[in-house]
Amino acid sequence: MDAIGGWNLVCSQLGIGGSCSPPGDLPYSFYMQDSAVLLIDCPDRRGLVARVASLLYEQGANILHADQHRDEALGLFFMRVEWTMNGAADGEARFDLQQFERAFAPMADELEMRWTLTSSAHRPRVALFCSHYLHCLADLLQRWRSGELRCDIPVIVSNHREVEGLAQFYKIPFAHVPVRAEARAEAEVRQLAILADHGVDLVVLARYMQVLSAGFVARYPSGIINVHHSFLPAFTGARPYHAAHGRGVKLIGATSHYVTEVLDDGPIIEQDVARISHRDQVDDLVARGRDLERVVLSRAVRWHLERRILSYGNKTVVFD
Amino acid sequence: MDAIGGWNLVCSQLGIGGSCSPPGDLPYSFYMQDSAVLLIDCPDRRGLVARVASLLYEQGANILHADQHRDEALGLFFMRVEWTMNGAADGEARFDLQQFERAFAPMADELEMRWTLTSSAHRPRVALFCSHYLHCLADLLQRWRSGELRCDIPVIVSNHREVEGLAQFYKIPFAHVPVRAEARAEAEVRQLAILADHGVDLVVLARYMQVLSAGFVARYPSGIINVHHSFLPAFTGARPYHAAHGRGVKLIGATSHYVTEVLDDGPIIEQDVARISHRDQVDDLVARGRDLERVVLSRAVRWHLERRILSYGNKTVVFD
Amino acid sequence: MDAIGGWNLVCSQLGIGGSCSPPGDLPYSFYMQDSAVLLIDCPDRRGLVARVASLLYEQGANILHADQHRDEALGLFFMRVEWTMNGAADGEARFDLQQFERAFAPMADELEMRWTLTSSAHRPRVALFCSHYLHCLADLLQRWRSGELRCDIPVIVSNHREVEGLAQFYKIPFAHVPVRAEARAEAEVRQLAILADHGVDLVVLARYMQVLSAGFVARYPSGIINVHHSFLPAFTGARPYHAAHGRGVKLIGATSHYVTEVLDDGPIIEQDVARISHRDQVDDLVARGRDLERVVLSRAVRWHLERRILSYGNKTVVFD
Amino acid sequence: MDAIGGWNLVCSQLGIGGSCSPPGDLPYSFYMQDSAVLLIDCPDRRGLVARVASLLYEQGANILHADQHRDEALGLFFMRVEWTMNGAADGEARFDLQQFERAFAPMADELEMRWTLTSSAHRPRVALFCSHYLHCLADLLQRWRSGELRCDIPVIVSNHREVEGLAQFYKIPFAHVPVRAEARAEAEVRQLAILADHGVDLVVLARYMQVLSAGFVARYPSGIINVHHSFLPAFTGARPYHAAHGRGVKLIGATSHYVTEVLDDGPIIEQDVARISHRDQVDDLVARGRDLERVVLSRAVRWHLERRILSYGNKTVVFD
Repeated sequence: MDAIGGWNLVCSQLGIGGSCSPPGDLPYSFYMQDSAVLLIDCPDRRGLVARVASLLYEQGANILHADQHRDEALGLFFMRVEWTMNGAADGEARFDLQQFERAFAPMADELEMRWTLTSSAHRPRVALFCSHYLHCLADLLQRWRSGELRCDIPVIVSNHREVEGLAQFYKIPFAHVPVRAEARAEAEVRQLAILADHGVDLVVLARYMQVLSAGFVARYPSGIINVHHSFLPAFTGARPYHAAHGRGVKLIGATSHYVTEVLDDGPIIEQDVARISHRDQVDDLVARGRDLERVVLSRAVRWHLERRILSYGNKTVVFD
Repeated sequence: MDAIGGWNLVCSQLGIGGSCSPPGDLPYSFYMQDSAVLLIDCPDRRGLVARVASLLYEQGANILHADQHRDEALGLFFMRVEWTMNGAADGEARFDLQQFERAFAPMADELEMRWTLTSSAHRPRVALFCSHYLHCLADLLQRWRSGELRCDIPVIVSNHREVEGLAQFYKIPFAHVPVRAEARAEAEVRQLAILADHGVDLVVLARYMQVLSAGFVARYPSGIINVHHSFLPAFTGARPYHAAHGRGVKLIGATSHYVTEVLDDGPIIEQDVARISHRDQVDDLVARGRDLERVVLSRAVRWHLERRILSYGNKTVVFD
Repeated sequence: MDAIGGWNLVCSQLGIGGSCSPPGDLPYSFYMQDSAVLLIDCPDRRGLVARVASLLYEQGANILHADQHRDEALGLFFMRVEWTMNGAADGEARFDLQQFERAFAPMADELEMRWTLTSSAHRPRVALFCSHYLHCLADLLQRWRSGELRCDIPVIVSNHREVEGLAQFYKIPFAHVPVRAEARAEAEVRQLAILADHGVDLVVLARYMQVLSAGFVARYPSGIINVHHSFLPAFTGARPYHAAHGRGVKLIGATSHYVTEVLDDGPIIEQDVARISHRDQVDDLVARGRDLERVVLSRAVRWHLERRILSYGNKTVVFD
Repeated sequence: MDAIGGWNLVCSQLGIGGSCSPPGDLPYSFYMQDSAVLLIDCPDRRGLVARVASLLYEQGANILHADQHRDEALGLFFMRVEWTMNGAADGEARFDLQQFERAFAPMADELEMRWTLTSSAHRPRVALFCSHYLHCLADLLQRWRSGELRCDIPVIVSNHREVEGLAQFYKIPFAHVPVRAEARAEAEVRQLAILADHGVDLVVLARYMQVLSAGFVARYPSGIINVHHSFLPAFTGARPYHAAHGRGVKLIGATSHYVTEVLDDGPIIEQDVARISHRDQVDDLVARGRDLERVVLSRAVRWHLERRILSYGNKTVVFD
């Protein structure tokens, strides 16, 4: 099924969507160009920008954005380039991505690059996991429908049946996978099978309250995004709002990060905070935190989908 | 129909809600006490706090929160007091609100007070108006269902049919009222009839793109909340994100305010901003602005429902 | 030496000061009223606000601000009241603070209150400690001279001689107290003697890099304010900016707090954060952090001087 | 006089400075590399990045940072590249800036580039103007002395004699230029002569309260930075804090911008805001605003000195 067509189908069935937006104030995805993105990291050396830029120029690319970063301590170089696929003028040929890839691969080998090359025509397939808190899930779905998140969402997975109503509203298949403490491994086998069946590229833990095993995590390196409801590294683990209240902090936070096998320790993608006061009780922190969680998680997902993130060691480079 | 029952009904039908939340991390409204709120404004004079606090004490009130403000330039005094309705100890009688009102009214007359006294058992009736942008509407509805907004929502009104799907999902009656330029007055007559039929206390303009007439506004003094997508008083009127982009500002904002007959000029309730850069185009501003609009509008609605706002002249006192 | 006179002396000698400010835009301390502040904490019970407010009313107080807080979990009540000392009308007598104190003391005993009553005429005596980073010291001194901090500063103490130039510029006595690892106790004896000689009420550690002993801290309960260059409780101890860079956080912070015998663990007064990115190296974090440190430390000192802070257990109530 | 030597002289005379900073926590300018910066703007076309990067590579440059921007609406391209002047390895020759300039100039002509090429060895000469509010001036001087601002400050100009004390403390020549309403033109003649005498590149208006004539402004295109104490374009003109208080806004702001002949209308460089409430009076806004003014002005000056800003039309590109 064509993803964009599917989305339009949902819109028309539900009578909801952005298609009625007036000119000049369209959801921003409508403006998104048909483009390609090259993400690179490699050992730093002279002339990297020149060589990549020159190759793109030779191949006729019209660069939209280019950004670089060097980690001097580690001697690493990072780059993101985005260019249009359309010809610059009427009648000019489309950029030939495969031809570029054939020309680029030998250079990348020579320069020891790790790289990904993606066309905006490719829509990543994202699975959403959640438990009984629905605010992050509802937020992601609303952003997805408004065109802010360019992906397909083939499945929503939860250990709570109550999530099904929301999945139905958005016409997304729902998988109920209960997780009992004594049968975690079996649950993960089922979850992994579901992900494989749906060809999932990215797993988003939208306040999914179960810890994933190292084996599960290893299957999706830099492919699982979680939101933790504290300003990491403060208040790791369970009940961070209670811990924040107990410590008497004046700001609370939320953090989105890639999941690694160490709990709450993966590369941080985004963080945000909100001011609180002595008047705020734990439940106020929970309520205010929801706004933070929505924002930091949705930004992380969007940046990942737009190939703005490179993670290395315990850190991320975010080309925003 | 009982409002709380109705809400639970929606939850159970849809299999969505907060009832499954674990102890210690409940949506904060679950903790809300059965309480009463007294809001006062009057000419400033000595002893106002003492007299109000003493009367409450005599009547057996257990004060939860009390806050005051004085506008020295204008010689005005503002106060909000909230107290529990339950007796302090088992077996102690409930606070008698009517008896308190009978005792308070003569004092209020003597001190030239404008005042409102409300029990948390009373749920205000809120109508949501929107046009074709659904992010604020979807956000308010999600917050309402999670218990963050203590009100009934008897009707959603829009000049766009597409909104109906979302209304149906939340089991809220939907009224489609087209607004043609040449027949605005007729449309307003219909809207006012709908509001009257549903006993509406508060109208929330959740990105409703039509200007209301002075006559409409006069029917709901301090009873219509709007969100404007700029940092007022900068960029009043249409297309504020375009204007902000044109001026080259480094922060964009959003503002929630009570509606008065002068466009974008009513008392400001809440504002927030987000940092942008030269990289952001108008459509990026629109996308980022959505997050601001959701936050400032939902805060304004919540504060209004919790009787935290007093407006006077062109300003608000927000007891947060 | 009269403090205000001394300040004016400094101004006139240096040709610097606020006395030339035009009407309508004066430094805000010029507007400060001649007022009194009562700070209370006690076990919570009914009628506390009424009793305090009624007593103030009987004594003729004209309340400027009143704020309360209840910690429901601990059953504690906190209150701050500020009122004018001047009579309301020409010819009316000044508020009699001693008479009020005589009337209030028995009530406070009965209600098990801890309390302080201070007149704005009293100027606390503040000692500033610093090491070789001068940004917080220079900031506090500039704010003090502009009238933002209502206190006397009888002495600046440092283990670095280089601080003397700045002290001389502000005409403040400077005490050089070297701190060698093997002779910490002796240094503290000297420091305590200096504080006693100058009748110091509050010690401000303006990036003072030496750890104070438990014995020293015990002499000034809730009387030593420190700034830590991280978002506590993350990154306690030495080199927090290095730790923040190593962890790859997206926001850095600073925290001002009362000093207790456990390092970086006292009641937090204020916190703030700034956004960073992968482009920022440790030295960028250090530079940005300076702005945060200045702001959170100066706010804490100002709030303390204005008697806005009550600390209990490991927390603070800040009546702002 | 050698600027760096002069600065060290000040430090050693006053016993103040960063030279005593411990390894690992040095003021960040100490780390600053000996580098060159190329700033470009020109009509957009394909291959610009490739051509500039290739030329730099051929000339042996080791790029530290490169950033680009395209204004699609106007068809403009902007670029900032920074590279080290040192050879990459021991014994390797220094980068030859003049040779590069000779090679670059023809390409720049061909591509219709406006460009500047500067070495970090060059220290811009900055004149500070202020009136009677000293907080921005004191802040800039403290940052300058701590090494945060890489420039010489050959003169401080004020219409208020009181500023002289602060100038003396920092060993900077002070010029008192009174400005009477009926003799503005004469005052400007004197000011321009002073600027010419000192070879000034950049004029910073650190709360200088006099309006400069169009003729004065024309002498320093993109060479005068001002701070306005509001969130522009809201509250232009005099007394913005009074206007903000009158309108009842919930956030106040400050803006740094290049000065053009239209008052408060030049290209915005930086903005920031702070939250206020109904409790804040005009004088509180003034006090809080000071913190904003310091931050937005000092950032603008630092970015200008680091050649991070390109202004075009009424906007700026800030490569941060």
